[in-house]
Amino acid sequence: MTMCSVISRVKPVQRALALTLRFRATTEGSSYALAESRRFCPGVSAVIDPLRATSRSYCSRMALTEGLLFRQLFESESSTYTYLLADTETKEAIVIDPVLETIDRDLKLIHELGLNLKVAVNTHCHADHITSTGLMKERLVGLKSAISKYSGASADIFLSEGDKISFGKHHLTVRDTPGHTDGCMSLVSGDQSMAFTGDALLIRGCGRTDFQQGCARKLYESVHQKIFTLPDQCLVYPAHDYLGQTVSTVGEERRFNPRLTKTEEEFVNIMNNLNLPKPSKIDISVPANLVCGVQEV
Amino acid sequence: MTMCSVISRVKPVQRALALTLRFRATTEGSSYALAESRRFCPGVSAVIDPLRATSRSYCSRMALTEGLLFRQLFESESSTYTYLLADTETKEAIVIDPVLETIDRDLKLIHELGLNLKVAVNTHCHADHITSTGLMKERLVGLKSAISKYSGASADIFLSEGDKISFGKHHLTVRDTPGHTDGCMSLVSGDQSMAFTGDALLIRGCGRTDFQQGCARKLYESVHQKIFTLPDQCLVYPAHDYLGQTVSTVGEERRFNPRLTKTEEEFVNIMNNLNLPKPSKIDISVPANLVCGVQEV
Repeated sequence: MTMCSVISRVKPVQRALALTLRFRATTEGSSYALAESRRFCPGVSAVIDPLRATSRSYCSRMALTEGLLFRQLFESESSTYTYLLADTETKEAIVIDPVLETIDRDLKLIHELGLNLKVAVNTHCHADHITSTGLMKERLVGLKSAISKYSGASADIFLSEGDKISFGKHHLTVRDTPGHTDGCMSLVSGDQSMAFTGDALLIRGCGRTDFQQGCARKLYESVHQKIFTLPDQCLVYPAHDYLGQTVSTVGEERRFNPRLTKTEEEFVNIMNNLNLPKPSKIDISVPANLVCGVQEV
Repeated sequence: MTMCSVISRVKPVQRALALTLRFRATTEGSSYALAESRRFCPGVSAVIDPLRATSRSYCSRMALTEGLLFRQLFESESSTYTYLLADTETKEAIVIDPVLETIDRDLKLIHELGLNLKVAVNTHCHADHITSTGLMKERLVGLKSAISKYSGASADIFLSEGDKISFGKHHLTVRDTPGHTDGCMSLVSGDQSMAFTGDALLIRGCGRTDFQQGCARKLYESVHQKIFTLPDQCLVYPAHDYLGQTVSTVGEERRFNPRLTKTEEEFVNIMNNLNLPKPSKIDISVPANLVCGVQEV
């Protein structure tokens, strides 16, 4: 992994602390998380803030993270959500899944808000649009690109389970969630109030599994092990939505997701029979995204 | 005004208290709001929570409103945002600017979340889409429609400056913001952390003023008197966005809105020379929206 000041690995002592705190959480959601965590991934490194247990409202304006600037942006051609997060004091910022077509809008906003963009991270190597990460790097001095080390794509920073992306006093923690592609990851805020789930978990849906190393069984396990183990009220911010929905929660998806509430066998059967057309941009998007969206770099 | 248990008028004593609290606020934004308020509308009835002065982060996930469920939903044909707000304890909910095309999506979500929808409010009589308010009333027992008393449209509840729309322990306060139409209003949350600005103020834009009683001068005064007097960090949730932006803040629009940062004369000149095409649906939308979207009612 290329080292960078904003990325740090979780130390073993923190993992132990996380597990201790996890055991101290007493609410239904956290108990569920605990049970799920023990069943599927006893070593998962996320830290549950014990304060969370006192707040159970599933609200997309939930508090707990003070001094966080958060913006959800939409690119309509590929129905992609781009997320901008920043520390309002230090102005350090990160962007998740920026799209080539909307680079001017996004850079203008970053400029207006006076932000210092440190990292542009892709949740995976996209097949439906070209990332603006490479071009952003040309325009913003010091910007680093980041992607999963399992993506096969080039970047300044390669991420995997437990890595942290820090900006000011905030951070996101990486959870590997393969299945849509091998290099898919979800990013979870420090207080577990937000999860950026990429194409692993969509609102009442999920990413397809019929190309780019797609594997329905892997995806099912990723969502159940790494996302459904988060607290009920954790907000789910996906990489796409096609119905005008902007956010969901882990609790809602665990109850209402029409695919992922099924058994693994039923899920695999559904995913293997979707018969979707090939994404129109896959032949130009994937090669471009393997090199940060800028093929000549 | 048709009376309804969820709507209440602000009493004179509350207005006096509001003014007192306004004077006690000491942060930059509130001082600006104070100055603007005194200049334009000394009797404005909104209550500033003194606690707000301690939190200055412009963040779309700001705390302060605990137990509030909030969802932003998008209808892509008319680029309309619908907002769903609810008290997570009592489950009482309201919806702002619901669209006919997305009624099934919206009712499904309301059902899944176990909400009791009390009021469907339109920020004005829309020209670009048909409201789903009337049809929602047919499907949800007890639901009331609400609109500005200056809109000319029929509804169960007619609203004007200072009226409150309550749901559980939360409420929104009406601010009349005419200019796009005579019956345009903005809805401001009790803690002034959110303003639903309809077509008065859009993100880096504003509603057009060339039909349906449109008046650029009125719109300019509405935005400066009733919206720009809110705290800097108050989130601006408009009725539309055409560029994939989901939210802004009062502070940002006061600094960066390309039209409303101009002088009134410049603004009027800009608005009178937009030369926009007539909205494609105006001839069916306005007559329908004058009767809650259901012409046969």
